Amino acid sequence: MTGPLPLGPFPDAAGYADAVQADLADPLARFRDHFAPTEPDLIYLDGNSLGRLPSATVDHLRRVVDHEWGRALIRSWGERWWDLAREVGDSIAPLIGAPAGSVVAADSTTVGLFKLAWGALQERPGRSEIVTDDMNFPTDVYVLGAAGRAAGGATVTIIESADGVEGPEEAILEAITPATALVSLSHVSFKSAYLYDMARITAAARAAGALVLWDLSHSVGVVPMDLGMADMAVGCTYKYLNGGPGAPAFVYVNPALEVDNPLHGWWGHESPFSFDLEYAAADSIARFQTGTMPILSLSAIEPAVALVAEAGVPAIRAKSVALTDYLIALADEVLGPLGFTVASPRSSARRGSHVSLRHDDAWRITQAMTDVGRVVPDFRDPDNIRLGLAPLYTSFLDVHTAVHRMATLMNDDLLNRYPEARGAVT
Amino acid sequence: MTGPLPLGPFPDAAGYADAVQADLADPLARFRDHFAPTEPDLIYLDGNSLGRLPSATVDHLRRVVDHEWGRALIRSWGERWWDLAREVGDSIAPLIGAPAGSVVAADSTTVGLFKLAWGALQERPGRSEIVTDDMNFPTDVYVLGAAGRAAGGATVTIIESADGVEGPEEAILEAITPATALVSLSHVSFKSAYLYDMARITAAARAAGALVLWDLSHSVGVVPMDLGMADMAVGCTYKYLNGGPGAPAFVYVNPALEVDNPLHGWWGHESPFSFDLEYAAADSIARFQTGTMPILSLSAIEPAVALVAEAGVPAIRAKSVALTDYLIALADEVLGPLGFTVASPRSSARRGSHVSLRHDDAWRITQAMTDVGRVVPDFRDPDNIRLGLAPLYTSFLDVHTAVHRMATLMNDDLLNRYPEARGAVT
Repeated sequence: MTGPLPLGPFPDAAGYADAVQADLADPLARFRDHFAPTEPDLIYLDGNSLGRLPSATVDHLRRVVDHEWGRALIRSWGERWWDLAREVGDSIAPLIGAPAGSVVAADSTTVGLFKLAWGALQERPGRSEIVTDDMNFPTDVYVLGAAGRAAGGATVTIIESADGVEGPEEAILEAITPATALVSLSHVSFKSAYLYDMARITAAARAAGALVLWDLSHSVGVVPMDLGMADMAVGCTYKYLNGGPGAPAFVYVNPALEVDNPLHGWWGHESPFSFDLEYAAADSIARFQTGTMPILSLSAIEPAVALVAEAGVPAIRAKSVALTDYLIALADEVLGPLGFTVASPRSSARRGSHVSLRHDDAWRITQAMTDVGRVVPDFRDPDNIRLGLAPLYTSFLDVHTAVHRMATLMNDDLLNRYPEARGAVT
Repeated sequence: MTGPLPLGPFPDAAGYADAVQADLADPLARFRDHFAPTEPDLIYLDGNSLGRLPSATVDHLRRVVDHEWGRALIRSWGERWWDLAREVGDSIAPLIGAPAGSVVAADSTTVGLFKLAWGALQERPGRSEIVTDDMNFPTDVYVLGAAGRAAGGATVTIIESADGVEGPEEAILEAITPATALVSLSHVSFKSAYLYDMARITAAARAAGALVLWDLSHSVGVVPMDLGMADMAVGCTYKYLNGGPGAPAFVYVNPALEVDNPLHGWWGHESPFSFDLEYAAADSIARFQTGTMPILSLSAIEPAVALVAEAGVPAIRAKSVALTDYLIALADEVLGPLGFTVASPRSSARRGSHVSLRHDDAWRITQAMTDVGRVVPDFRDPDNIRLGLAPLYTSFLDVHTAVHRMATLMNDDLLNRYPEARGAVT
């Protein structure tokens, strides 16, 4: 094969008419124009890792930098910044079915997990076990272990899944015993997109006297949920919320609980500006704050969450299901004969908003996709290509074009140009 | 008094010729033009709380937002962002006399203190005491206590100062015993600007087998230091480094130590992208990272630190000493008769870069200064007005004008317009 790859569109290829029709009927189509342009021929299917830049964020950040920092300076703390993390929390709360005043932006997801897991263990003295699964994001497993250690020796039981695709839901329910202090899972698994039945797990854990801590990183903003009786949750804001690279995480604590934050800092104090040397925790979700927040990154969350709220999570979810259903059907038909297998749940009721495809040559394919295919996916060792479908800016035609570009580059001459194994970090 | 206050300059008032002469001779004068303009008549004396916006940061952030996030998207992780926190750490290292590879940007100062204090306590099993003083920033005291609790019950001994101005250095040295695991102090006190003798305290602690953890928040970028044999340090980047509101903190760990980070996360893992479920700490300062960093806020540190490095900390310190000496002399002469007293050390060898003035009516004066006086200071309960002198952008004429504006507004008709006590947070 010589010359550039054909980048499409592919009007004669399988599934084209369906894509065109679905885009015409898409009630969220107008949101696509609310994002800053990337390269014109690029199809970005990694919104499950880093969401795109909303156009409104560009102007908002300019105002924060030039006016709030540059001109108003320290006065902006009193005028706006001091309450910002709680305001951002309140804007996220309705997206996750949590009441106002129960969510605050703070730190990273990992630090949030430490705080909540440690706090949970204090609430369950005499219980020494944390239950999670092997489909959880590794940092969650690390930090659950670290919190268990810091809390005096609780251990983490990692329930194994059969195939890495479907969550071991029954095995988790069986593993919850009177020794279980905490059950902590990713609501949607980072690899396969398996979507847990939040209500069922939560009810079972509570019935056994354990607390539950959900990681919503891969579901917030794209899967409706009702935290309802759930105890605690964390989530990140830079995937489907489009809050920007490494934007601060959020923590949710059920207002009925009085969990303690182990990282006492002045931002969690009931009266930070009295400068008492004695710590007294705020009687609100503010107590889960610790130190000063990165205001630029925190500010970027505001217009991004407003966009998700305007579209509405139910409408986003409806399009997400249609997009992932469409991608799976097309992958079966077009990519299946080329050695790809679908490694995400086939039931949309059990699936988040990305689809994982497995292939023996996944790393080479990922490189070729990004390089000459102009499709940006996400790779996860050893053989996983994740395709994230972000309903606010991914179209059905994007999916169609991306799948056919992938089919086009499946030839050995091309793929052999790329290294077989991943070396350094990318 | 009616009509607007005279805002100066005040060529006939005490000290004017000295100010003009000092500004003419100032080798750092050109750096003033490297900051984005604030309001034209405003004198900003709160760089010890939030540093001003470097002009280079405006362009840099625009590139990060528009290009790195908006266009390059996830690819920016591989191209630049992954190593950014360590690169920022390496840029800060020479400013604090630390070797390359010993500093990393991460989290907030408070979270950094938790990590290091907890880690230190693991290194000193059998010792159960942390020594600090009552001039330390309250969040430091809170989180030392929290780390002690999480580490199994170490307690914090708070050494009292005689007057809140001079650090209780002798009493601290006496308090270090074989039970002391850790000595942790602010290098420069947030209230009085007292500057500790880092080498002396460090040597005494080490001689007693204790570790030392310095908070450099009020000294980094304005006081030369040699962390040399010091064990650990944290610091913030948004004061004299001008890194922006709430910009990430940094942590330093002496390369000879193998302190553990209690907050295990994937960013501290030796191989983050292998996605092992088993935690294995990186064999470098990277192990003090936990979760994903706020890239916008982190990026803002880069051009700001470059400016400090270009000016050089010794030259910054020389101007800082001259500025604070000048302010104290002028305050004695002009403000002393109006009820102000200097609440900072009179020896420049023992003083950081801000000067605290006490006055019975300090809160009213602070409000009048900001409102009609067009001078922004910082207020600390109950009676402390802090005037921060940032050598990169504060001129001697700024100091002269600010002091005479303060003198001008000292009349009851004006001050009585403002509330006597601080209510809500500002």
